[in-house]
Amino acid sequence: MPRDGRIVRGRLEQAALDLFAEHGFDGTTTEQIAARAGVTERTYFRHFPDKREVLFASEEELREVTVAAIESIPAGVEPLEALHQAFHDVVPLLVRNRQLAALRAPIIMAAPALREREHAKTAALIDLVQEALVKRNIDERSALLCARVGMGVFSTAIRRWATGSATDLHDEVDGAFADLATMAASLDERRPA
Amino acid sequence: MPRDGRIVRGRLEQAALDLFAEHGFDGTTTEQIAARAGVTERTYFRHFPDKREVLFASEEELREVTVAAIESIPAGVEPLEALHQAFHDVVPLLVRNRQLAALRAPIIMAAPALREREHAKTAALIDLVQEALVKRNIDERSALLCARVGMGVFSTAIRRWATGSATDLHDEVDGAFADLATMAASLDERRPA
Repeated sequence: MPRDGRIVRGRLEQAALDLFAEHGFDGTTTEQIAARAGVTERTYFRHFPDKREVLFASEEELREVTVAAIESIPAGVEPLEALHQAFHDVVPLLVRNRQLAALRAPIIMAAPALREREHAKTAALIDLVQEALVKRNIDERSALLCARVGMGVFSTAIRRWATGSATDLHDEVDGAFADLATMAASLDERRPA
Repeated sequence: MPRDGRIVRGRLEQAALDLFAEHGFDGTTTEQIAARAGVTERTYFRHFPDKREVLFASEEELREVTVAAIESIPAGVEPLEALHQAFHDVVPLLVRNRQLAALRAPIIMAAPALREREHAKTAALIDLVQEALVKRNIDERSALLCARVGMGVFSTAIRRWATGSATDLHDEVDGAFADLATMAASLDERRPA
């Protein structure tokens, strides 16, 4: 049994992906995941609070990398542009996890309970991005708007990249932000009748 | 026992809100909700598939009103501006439901399972908005971006209105879209170094 926590987590994650693909999410137990990974069920629960969470093991790293990326952008950069630049620093992590993400996607799509967990994770990430913007002295209201819009643009770029053929995620990020600039430029200033 | 389905739904909704406020979500059963509303548990399940769903009874109307509002905007209006104008038509429904929403909010915030359901509902609404934009001959990619950004702006306006003091939701919608235009105007066109 491997001693290193990260290795065990990785093995549990892979075992879960394999079993969910073979028997579906509902047809798999945490006991089976633990057995496939060569550990006890108790060890499983030291790493993950429930059966769903094993599929979101990489989310923690995504949160850390995203917040660190925003913190690294120089203070003078406007908030939405700061997110634009920061997201480029998150790209390598997503590229590295692409294969895992491709395995996870159909499993998550097939189970409403997993889709709900996924949406909750996204919402939690938006909250973190908002906090990171507030630390840059953006007021709460603007930070919330900027976080929601920025993450909406980023997730669209990721979706385009994940479902498209042979595109570069850096290009998709730039493309999606450019599309946003074009769309927003056509907004009417006056209140509609 | 009232015969009209809408009345029963409304009574179940109110009974659930009362009981959840008194005993918490986990401390309440569907049997108790049904009893409080003066119907059988079987009737409860004719209206809602599970205990959570009773809290989202008003979502269906929100979806219908939102899609109808987008469809009513003239074809020539640019997509993000079309959403901006359509959201003004959704305002009266939100104003009417404000008190109910204020009762729901703390109950939903207190239970992770309800927060997850809430996030899933938001995601489903974004999908519907995207579809409504595709029907306006916007390509899928732009429609997804526009739906996510537009709903991000709208939900921010709603949050500002719900948590602020004595503001007008129409003003918040215009203000949030104006903030977006300002933010997007400061985006750099070139790829960051």
